[in-house]
Amino acid sequence: MRQASIYDTTLRDGTQAEEMHLTTEDKIRIACKLDELGVHYIEGGWPGSNPTDKAFFKEIQNYALKNACVAAFGSTHNAKTTAENDPNLKAVIEAQVAAASIFGKTWDFHATHALKVSLQRNIELISGSLAFLRPHLKELFFDAEHFFDGFKANPDYAIACLKAARDAGADVLVLCDTNGGALPAEVAEIIAKVQATLPGAALGIHAHNDAELAVANSLEAVRLGAAQVQGTMNGYGERCGNANLCSIIPSLELKMGVRTIGPENLKKLAGISHYVAETANQRPFPRQPYVGGSAFAHKGGVHVSAVVKNPQTYEHIDPAQVGNVSRVLLSDLAGRSNILFKARQYGYDLEKDDPAVLDLLAELKRRESMGYDYSVAEASYEILFFRMMGWSKRYFQMLNYRVLDAVNDEKEPFSEATVMLQVRGEVAHTAATGHGPVNALDVALRRALEPSYPTLAQMRLLDFKVRVMSMADKNGGGTASYVRVLIESGDRQNRWSTVGVSHNIIEASWQALVDSINYKLFKDDPQKWPRPGGKHDATAPGEVRR
Amino acid sequence: MRQASIYDTTLRDGTQAEEMHLTTEDKIRIACKLDELGVHYIEGGWPGSNPTDKAFFKEIQNYALKNACVAAFGSTHNAKTTAENDPNLKAVIEAQVAAASIFGKTWDFHATHALKVSLQRNIELISGSLAFLRPHLKELFFDAEHFFDGFKANPDYAIACLKAARDAGADVLVLCDTNGGALPAEVAEIIAKVQATLPGAALGIHAHNDAELAVANSLEAVRLGAAQVQGTMNGYGERCGNANLCSIIPSLELKMGVRTIGPENLKKLAGISHYVAETANQRPFPRQPYVGGSAFAHKGGVHVSAVVKNPQTYEHIDPAQVGNVSRVLLSDLAGRSNILFKARQYGYDLEKDDPAVLDLLAELKRRESMGYDYSVAEASYEILFFRMMGWSKRYFQMLNYRVLDAVNDEKEPFSEATVMLQVRGEVAHTAATGHGPVNALDVALRRALEPSYPTLAQMRLLDFKVRVMSMADKNGGGTASYVRVLIESGDRQNRWSTVGVSHNIIEASWQALVDSINYKLFKDDPQKWPRPGGKHDATAPGEVRR
Repeated sequence: MRQASIYDTTLRDGTQAEEMHLTTEDKIRIACKLDELGVHYIEGGWPGSNPTDKAFFKEIQNYALKNACVAAFGSTHNAKTTAENDPNLKAVIEAQVAAASIFGKTWDFHATHALKVSLQRNIELISGSLAFLRPHLKELFFDAEHFFDGFKANPDYAIACLKAARDAGADVLVLCDTNGGALPAEVAEIIAKVQATLPGAALGIHAHNDAELAVANSLEAVRLGAAQVQGTMNGYGERCGNANLCSIIPSLELKMGVRTIGPENLKKLAGISHYVAETANQRPFPRQPYVGGSAFAHKGGVHVSAVVKNPQTYEHIDPAQVGNVSRVLLSDLAGRSNILFKARQYGYDLEKDDPAVLDLLAELKRRESMGYDYSVAEASYEILFFRMMGWSKRYFQMLNYRVLDAVNDEKEPFSEATVMLQVRGEVAHTAATGHGPVNALDVALRRALEPSYPTLAQMRLLDFKVRVMSMADKNGGGTASYVRVLIESGDRQNRWSTVGVSHNIIEASWQALVDSINYKLFKDDPQKWPRPGGKHDATAPGEVRR
Repeated sequence: MRQASIYDTTLRDGTQAEEMHLTTEDKIRIACKLDELGVHYIEGGWPGSNPTDKAFFKEIQNYALKNACVAAFGSTHNAKTTAENDPNLKAVIEAQVAAASIFGKTWDFHATHALKVSLQRNIELISGSLAFLRPHLKELFFDAEHFFDGFKANPDYAIACLKAARDAGADVLVLCDTNGGALPAEVAEIIAKVQATLPGAALGIHAHNDAELAVANSLEAVRLGAAQVQGTMNGYGERCGNANLCSIIPSLELKMGVRTIGPENLKKLAGISHYVAETANQRPFPRQPYVGGSAFAHKGGVHVSAVVKNPQTYEHIDPAQVGNVSRVLLSDLAGRSNILFKARQYGYDLEKDDPAVLDLLAELKRRESMGYDYSVAEASYEILFFRMMGWSKRYFQMLNYRVLDAVNDEKEPFSEATVMLQVRGEVAHTAATGHGPVNALDVALRRALEPSYPTLAQMRLLDFKVRVMSMADKNGGGTASYVRVLIESGDRQNRWSTVGVSHNIIEASWQALVDSINYKLFKDDPQKWPRPGGKHDATAPGEVRR
């Protein structure tokens, strides 16, 4: 089976994305996950450029990676000095890595206008830098910056740069579409010409996504023989991002017969994509191919009824191959077949015309029109479903609550909540302060409930999201609109999401908190009614299974 | 110049996206904008399937569109009846449109397993449906569902379906990659075979993005001669979405020499992409090619200094061609050159080593480490910049504020804010209720300030976003983390964004509100110091220029 190596640059080029900041600790955590995923190279940073990257290369020496080789990034040496005296190249050696990628100019315009050197001097920079580093590294790659634009402008010069790099000892010549504007047909044509001019040279591809073609360009390069693909997790990177390894790897493995990380590691892809997003504090993109939350989510009625019969009808691969799952969304577009599908997951085999189904459908429509969205809060849906099926148990009842936030010029903001609940026949009245009003409410609520329900101590709030549902109303602007709060919670085993909607962010948060607590108590309840059985518990749709 | 027509299906296939809900009014608004953009066809919906779509086709009759032809979507008739008696085909006619796309099965497996009819009967459904509709429509398109998968499974049958559609009068045979899993090289190979078998047939392409290849597959089809491209604005659609017209149109126009909407309309693309996102209440994807907020945003120090010299160095097109703008992000990665670039926009020509620059850099780093992000809140940055440059004017000073939220089982949530400010030598002490705590604060703040600053009445809050900055801390979970609030405000001329960060969502909202009001007052102030001059006012970076 043909092989291609995966060179991940999330920790270097990925951090050029807007709103992307990684600490050294974040980088170490991500590097360990990338190693677990089975990528071949992890580019940790540009050791000569900033202290975070320098610290990473020092710290990663304490980790024994199983699969991946850590690589450093650097540029050809400064034109005013020699390779031996260039601090940037020295930093690459001091990083004590087995592999490095050195980028150099191959577009004549960049050599003369950005570097401001002669074309001949630029070639000397490439040769000199690579020849100097060669004895210090096991593997040495040349990143041919702007190669495709350079080739279009001056093919002979672009090829001369590649030759210089090869002759100076580069193991792989990585063709970069730095500005991200190349078309797949151009990439294919240019690669064929390079192969004709430099037969046998090992080529790599490093694409950017400025024309939404980075994945296609990378796959075209591998189809034509490229041995190395550079990219980032989730396509993070400057401007429109780098080539997205989370799309490239599965297409190579599952559609093109090229072995990269192997089918067993591939099953970790969705989980690790999500881990990287969370660690980098990036909002996951739901429509992301293969690994996104919506990637196998079916909404249209025609699609849903076909997928229930046979998933292959509207799924290009089995989502389990990349660690993802099929989902059926709850929406008025799809209607009853979706409700029946969910009901089966909870252990109910309902008929289309069951009055309970019609009631639930009407209630869902009413709530959707108010801004509730159960497709992203399946635990709230599950509670609603069992309520509609007649489950009337109450773990507690709210009598009232109150939150006060006060600030004056001198002091830290102060938040205090009081909560009054009816719990097991008693009135529980608690007060708490917190870091903000929702935290104060959460603490007061737990104080009121934990004496009666000690398993709540296992539960944690993991994420809290706020969405304003409609813009600028006539009376007073955005803040007078509906607010939807989504809360993600977890305990030792599971994660689940709940929703609340109100004009008031505090009330919406309260609803989502209460649903989350009710869901936890329901799942832990030995006397819950009806008992859906172990099988359904294990795959309950309210839980995020990754 | 070669031409290709653009068939937009945002209003039909786009609404299959998760969390996408469009009312009839939303659809009308979007249709008018698409017409302004110059697309050739607007698929308004599936009139036989739901009341929203039916209402759209009725309502759109009241609008005289300038460029676009409204099209309806429908399926081949039900196998248990005839075309004449099929309510779904009748609804297409009743929609009173000039064009329609009718989808039919071309994958043998789908005919036998999803439709549960014989292969011959499926061909009859195609022929009968198209022949019945033909006299009622000016233009008739056949959407060959699952064509590429069907061709791979049974090429003769897939071609037979196309032939039946052509013979029954279809003007364009639209080849659909319904499951979105096809590779560009496959698409090219299959299209070449179709062209060899059905010479002269007008082909269209309808791609989905499940392998992140929808744009590449669409461009390959047009390169090989396809006359119609179907897709959606921003790539909205089921699962991973449809082919993204916001990427396809500029690549055809600017890179492939194919005329679609023309260069003048192309300049509206970023604005209309944004309009559709806002109307559909979808969070814009910042890394979106061509039109995204980050698409021409430069962060890396090497890139920033080169782009300042010559934008072509790291931009594949001139962003003005698609109505977008270059941006330089403020980040510790890029450092001083970014600060100098912004300063020039405000009318300051600062030296690298100016102590004010070093102070500002230190202050920015301190605030970034607390969670402030000025790259998405340029009005807050502008205020900070002028403060650091010595601007000491105060429009008001906060003495204290307080917000109370109270709920009991019987009533609506109640929010009351009190604000005490020092304004022009007087103490203003106001109280207000509101729809939630931030609205109450906003109203109380305006009550205190409007008597002294009447132009504040022009200002509106347009959007309000909350982001929790770090997950699950040790003491109490997500709600105890830092909260970043972004507020977008606008008046008659401009829009601007401000940021606040605190443990407490109320305090973070307060900071962003106060910055927003200060920015408005600063811009309106005839005595503001220093006066950056008219030129800079017009393009001040705190404003969102679209």
